[in-house]
Amino acid sequence: MIAPQTYTQLYRDTLLNDVIPFWQKHSPDQEYGGFFTCLDRTGNVYDTDKFIWLQARQVWTFSMLYNRLGSIPLDGTPLEQRADWLKMAQHGANFLKKHGRADDGSWYFSLTRDGRPLIQPYNIFSDCFATMAFGQLSVAMGNEEYAHIAKSTFDQILQRRDNPKGHWNKAVAGTRPLKNFALPMILCNLSLEIEHLLDQALVNQTIDECIHEVMDVFYDPDLGLIRENVMPDGQFSDSFEGRLLNPGHAIEAMWFIMDLAARRNDLALVEKAVRITLDTLTYAWDDVHGGLFYFMDSKGHPTQQLEWEQKLWWVHVETLVTLLKGYQQTGNPECWVWFERVHAYTWAHFPDPESGEWYGYLNRQGEVLLPLKGGKWKGCFHIPRGLYQCWQTLTKL
Amino acid sequence: MIAPQTYTQLYRDTLLNDVIPFWQKHSPDQEYGGFFTCLDRTGNVYDTDKFIWLQARQVWTFSMLYNRLGSIPLDGTPLEQRADWLKMAQHGANFLKKHGRADDGSWYFSLTRDGRPLIQPYNIFSDCFATMAFGQLSVAMGNEEYAHIAKSTFDQILQRRDNPKGHWNKAVAGTRPLKNFALPMILCNLSLEIEHLLDQALVNQTIDECIHEVMDVFYDPDLGLIRENVMPDGQFSDSFEGRLLNPGHAIEAMWFIMDLAARRNDLALVEKAVRITLDTLTYAWDDVHGGLFYFMDSKGHPTQQLEWEQKLWWVHVETLVTLLKGYQQTGNPECWVWFERVHAYTWAHFPDPESGEWYGYLNRQGEVLLPLKGGKWKGCFHIPRGLYQCWQTLTKL
Repeated sequence: MIAPQTYTQLYRDTLLNDVIPFWQKHSPDQEYGGFFTCLDRTGNVYDTDKFIWLQARQVWTFSMLYNRLGSIPLDGTPLEQRADWLKMAQHGANFLKKHGRADDGSWYFSLTRDGRPLIQPYNIFSDCFATMAFGQLSVAMGNEEYAHIAKSTFDQILQRRDNPKGHWNKAVAGTRPLKNFALPMILCNLSLEIEHLLDQALVNQTIDECIHEVMDVFYDPDLGLIRENVMPDGQFSDSFEGRLLNPGHAIEAMWFIMDLAARRNDLALVEKAVRITLDTLTYAWDDVHGGLFYFMDSKGHPTQQLEWEQKLWWVHVETLVTLLKGYQQTGNPECWVWFERVHAYTWAHFPDPESGEWYGYLNRQGEVLLPLKGGKWKGCFHIPRGLYQCWQTLTKL
Repeated sequence: MIAPQTYTQLYRDTLLNDVIPFWQKHSPDQEYGGFFTCLDRTGNVYDTDKFIWLQARQVWTFSMLYNRLGSIPLDGTPLEQRADWLKMAQHGANFLKKHGRADDGSWYFSLTRDGRPLIQPYNIFSDCFATMAFGQLSVAMGNEEYAHIAKSTFDQILQRRDNPKGHWNKAVAGTRPLKNFALPMILCNLSLEIEHLLDQALVNQTIDECIHEVMDVFYDPDLGLIRENVMPDGQFSDSFEGRLLNPGHAIEAMWFIMDLAARRNDLALVEKAVRITLDTLTYAWDDVHGGLFYFMDSKGHPTQQLEWEQKLWWVHVETLVTLLKGYQQTGNPECWVWFERVHAYTWAHFPDPESGEWYGYLNRQGEVLLPLKGGKWKGCFHIPRGLYQCWQTLTKL
């Protein structure tokens, strides 16, 4: 076993000297505001559409880093350089505030470069990431307007949560009333993100509900895994959607749960989250080529997702976070063994030392499938958040 | 060069002795009617949802084969065996007629096994394939009710064509008003399918419009290829959708165009379709592993489609049809050279001699990605139609 401290410097330096500078250099749109996120291998912009998920996530990332690291001593990263992080966050927030919302306050899915709406506000996760962005930035700035945007968006999410897609929902109501894992999973995290803006009773109630949904309703004890879609009462639906497993989603949720459990000193909850993580890893690890599959079918049938066997950046970096938090909170040596295995695969395949930042999409064999650093879904979020979380957790070991 | 006649027997026998019997044996749902289309490698049912595209396409396939082959001498396939084809078509049509339509006459996207609606009628291609199915079956049966279903569905398609997704459309009207290649491409084919039910002036007008759309509007002469999405006036949109190329779609459309050109004795149109086919093949052929890519970007940028590099059954079988028709109509030797190359790749990778029928989804390397014979999108359609078209065209060489 290599000492944990060996890894600390790698995660820290990659965050501060590679990933964050890459986005600072290549993503700001100085003409129209906001960020370019479609960046090729070397950082050239290959498409100018602005996706609200990624605009908001980048605002969040720079705000979060500023809030956590903006004023503490940090070798080699002077304070004025970190003040630029706050400017980046404000740059994105201005664009979002000006162009991001429809008349009813819900957030569009995407905009043109100059801010005209392209895709309607059908996707509630646009609202989730906007809440995170303005919540973090309101802390950094002490800005009441930003706080209000975060709070009012959060209130709308809670109102929309039972039918988030509204009239864009293609499912016939009642025939197969499945509910999806993503929203309760994100609400776990979101309620902590804007805790400073919420009534404490609402925070506690939301957290209680989310933990119950994730660990009791979506977790299938017979299968030993978390399902992506279940019937309203948590029962299994033997359908494509009901059989679907999204291992990266499940493992990412486990570190949200571990954070909540740590806050409550609930060791049993941490232990359960660690068990689910390890069982998911065993199930979803590709024994032939290494790495974690993107989608699986709980009965081993073919998935509808043609990309099921691909290896994605966020799946792997979120897994590293979960394993380190699990190890830190329980000392379970299986977490460390798996951390070293996933670390080795991840660092051998995703980073691009030549041009900076990380690739996002690999084929099953671990070769680069799309030579992009950013696109419609990959932006300045999972890699920097994951590197930050790993770095911080490693320093506690 | 191997003589064309060498291939004829292979295409014929595979259709009549392998593919059609596979669907006859494994797909009928004797309890609730209609067809199972989610069939694993050996034909076992792994999911029971009923997708209107595939229900209708299977009705069409069995009706078409009955109409073309039902009463002619055919070695080794007695007449009574072919009468079963008509029973299969009726079996599917009964289910569709009973359960397939919403109150306004539009066709749902999918149903449960017992016919309850699952996914709303947001997808106009459900209606297109229903039209084809009932149009062909009305010929076989001389059935007025089937003819009426085909005709009224076709009329609704024409009414919906400018906004086919209705309120399920997520694009904000006006910002980037792209139109998609699939509908004009299918209307080319559809108007001939139900010609017997339409006013001749409407048929001619629809065909004229479709040829113009496909060959002038979606074909980009500077690029030398057909685009999947263009601005209303045919101009290029430098966006993910605007840069998208779908080589299999373009090549499939070329044999619809060749059929229309043959009907009009328009040799210049055939020659143009052959040129587009050959240029698309040169552009989309994978020089490393063989086979045709599924999606590409006209500027060489990363696509949004993670499955871009995969090799799909329909792309390859439709290409074989186009190349043979092009060769038959023009004698261009490039068509035959490409036919032999695509034939060799296709027959080496897609058929499954052990369990019958063909695989649908291969990875870039040509290995089986999903070991299914049928699913949400692959049913009893492209393979039998392609084998039939190739067989018939080969006999004319």
